[in-house]
Amino acid sequence: MADVPSPLVTLTTDYGSGSGYPAQVKGVLLSAVPDLRIVDLSHGIPAFDLLAGALLLEACVPWYPPEAIHLAVVDPGVGTARRAVCVVDASGRRLVGPDNGLFTPFLVPGSRVFALSDDAVVPQPARPTFHGRDLFAPVAAWLAGGGPPERLGPLVPDPVRLRWPEPQREAGGLRGEVLLADPFGNLLTSLRSVHLPSGPLAVEVAGRPARVVRTYGDARVAELVALVGSSGRLEIAIREGSAARVLGLGRGASVTVRRAG
Amino acid sequence: MADVPSPLVTLTTDYGSGSGYPAQVKGVLLSAVPDLRIVDLSHGIPAFDLLAGALLLEACVPWYPPEAIHLAVVDPGVGTARRAVCVVDASGRRLVGPDNGLFTPFLVPGSRVFALSDDAVVPQPARPTFHGRDLFAPVAAWLAGGGPPERLGPLVPDPVRLRWPEPQREAGGLRGEVLLADPFGNLLTSLRSVHLPSGPLAVEVAGRPARVVRTYGDARVAELVALVGSSGRLEIAIREGSAARVLGLGRGASVTVRRAG
Amino acid sequence: MADVPSPLVTLTTDYGSGSGYPAQVKGVLLSAVPDLRIVDLSHGIPAFDLLAGALLLEACVPWYPPEAIHLAVVDPGVGTARRAVCVVDASGRRLVGPDNGLFTPFLVPGSRVFALSDDAVVPQPARPTFHGRDLFAPVAAWLAGGGPPERLGPLVPDPVRLRWPEPQREAGGLRGEVLLADPFGNLLTSLRSVHLPSGPLAVEVAGRPARVVRTYGDARVAELVALVGSSGRLEIAIREGSAARVLGLGRGASVTVRRAG
Repeated sequence: MADVPSPLVTLTTDYGSGSGYPAQVKGVLLSAVPDLRIVDLSHGIPAFDLLAGALLLEACVPWYPPEAIHLAVVDPGVGTARRAVCVVDASGRRLVGPDNGLFTPFLVPGSRVFALSDDAVVPQPARPTFHGRDLFAPVAAWLAGGGPPERLGPLVPDPVRLRWPEPQREAGGLRGEVLLADPFGNLLTSLRSVHLPSGPLAVEVAGRPARVVRTYGDARVAELVALVGSSGRLEIAIREGSAARVLGLGRGASVTVRRAG
Repeated sequence: MADVPSPLVTLTTDYGSGSGYPAQVKGVLLSAVPDLRIVDLSHGIPAFDLLAGALLLEACVPWYPPEAIHLAVVDPGVGTARRAVCVVDASGRRLVGPDNGLFTPFLVPGSRVFALSDDAVVPQPARPTFHGRDLFAPVAAWLAGGGPPERLGPLVPDPVRLRWPEPQREAGGLRGEVLLADPFGNLLTSLRSVHLPSGPLAVEVAGRPARVVRTYGDARVAELVALVGSSGRLEIAIREGSAARVLGLGRGASVTVRRAG
Repeated sequence: MADVPSPLVTLTTDYGSGSGYPAQVKGVLLSAVPDLRIVDLSHGIPAFDLLAGALLLEACVPWYPPEAIHLAVVDPGVGTARRAVCVVDASGRRLVGPDNGLFTPFLVPGSRVFALSDDAVVPQPARPTFHGRDLFAPVAAWLAGGGPPERLGPLVPDPVRLRWPEPQREAGGLRGEVLLADPFGNLLTSLRSVHLPSGPLAVEVAGRPARVVRTYGDARVAELVALVGSSGRLEIAIREGSAARVLGLGRGASVTVRRAG
């Protein structure tokens, strides 16, 4: 008989890994489900940065087994009237956290969103400031124990969505923007490989040309380049250097793509 | 037959998570107890900051199953004559580390403290600078394997305690102090909810008034507020901002509470 | 019947722990081997710093059970013609990653290096920029499932080695260099305990004398000292302070040792 692997919960927060807040969440989870496996996706989301949290979930969640449960908390409105939800996407992936747009990439046709509201299974936190520990962790543990999302509360017809940065068509090409810098200083953009015209491309970032290459090592040292990175997004990079620091650019900087020639 | 979950050891250090020191500790633990589960509480304690370590343990340990073993090392005196101990608190929770005050919150009536001294079960580290790896990890592994704390050595009647920051009563109220800033810049104080008078309160931090609210989202943007946070401590906060940075305050800053009106 | 513990994979990268890149690698590993145990050695290697990565592996890997698999990626040449390898050292330890010198400490007599090239078991990454996720993780998972390294590809006779900083003999003693600063600011050097003459020693770092002590706590506050640290290397330290910051020194700074007297 094959062993069933123990349930898996991932964590994504802006708590900071050393703060003790992730550790409290883990203690609640392990107290409820002793054989639970926990994986940190990130505790380094910049404080209150919903877009960064949503992008991280979008990049990471698809690599996990569909039966994993994803607890995510970037939550400036903790303890206020903002709703709490469990998203079940079209693949059956479950995400638990605040209804504030953090789960925007998963709000696609076929997904369902359940409010966390049923008093029989959803705890009423005694304190209003740490729902990661006092609300979302107990709910994730309950799901990990086999609880069906439908029991958590009614369907939410209008989950909150972030304004999602979509590229704009403009004369001769596309205009997008920088979304974030990764730890190498590579600038990830709102332009995805599916958006890009075929054939040779001309890329500019904040008015500076970036040569299109296949991988970082194809650039010359200190050369500004553009490439489709591991998430399928156009990236602006400098070989063995930080494009973010050299260019002094971050979220919102303009990036344009045209057919070269 | 229900499976017994494998033993659980948590780690709390000032080693820095990327330094390789926590990884060496984990290697020793996993070599001794292959099915051990390890959870990091924090490796981001500021170097040598015993109070920060003690506060983190106080905040996190109670959320864990009582059978977990807590290895904690903030240890400026490593390799000197300072004792090494295993604390068993009134709930049977076991904490292993240096006898330098790090375990002060757990030195309460009903707790027992054992010296790590019995040559039959406590290793004699070949090098004097890394007791986390060479002394505490083998002892934690031995406890995880079912070894009784009583075998580690004799009872320590006088474990070292930190001077613990307790609030002072003063005319019309209480005076406490800032203990630390969390990663959001919230300032945690020595004033606990149990200390606070009932009814409306007037809070000042370093002479500036902070309006008392229930949760962060009840503040106006950029407003200085005070609230009872998730650890039961009075916190000073700024909505979606860093009170620590805006006020330029850290440990020791004065906080006063009076009845309002 | 004794349970066989589930396979163990360690991770060492320069990805940054909060970036989402380690989390994607873990998702691939857990999707392939559901009961896999994963331990982070470090995701804080400075970007592209092969020597720092190699030193971290050298310090950590020996503490792990020999059956653990070590996936390590510091990889400025990802997607270029640089080879990918699995090193099997003389103890049977398996390390998977780029062939760029990262595994230099394990390239010793008795070790074998296999190219990752056999199309039947080694995936062909669809994108060239994230071999940690798309190449090395599938290979590590395949090894964790019992795949023999010999199947991955042919032996590599000439794996890339880093120039390894070896101490130089000079009149009256030895000259070495600082390799890195740990999070406490202790400066680890290229001088190992096996290199050191017996008897009392005189140590200088960048021309300043450092008194030789046994452990950090044997120093006076603010005193510059030298000691053999937990990795068997001579370290330069300041008690409860940062030698790196106080001296303003880092990699390459000169350290000399002579017999005292």
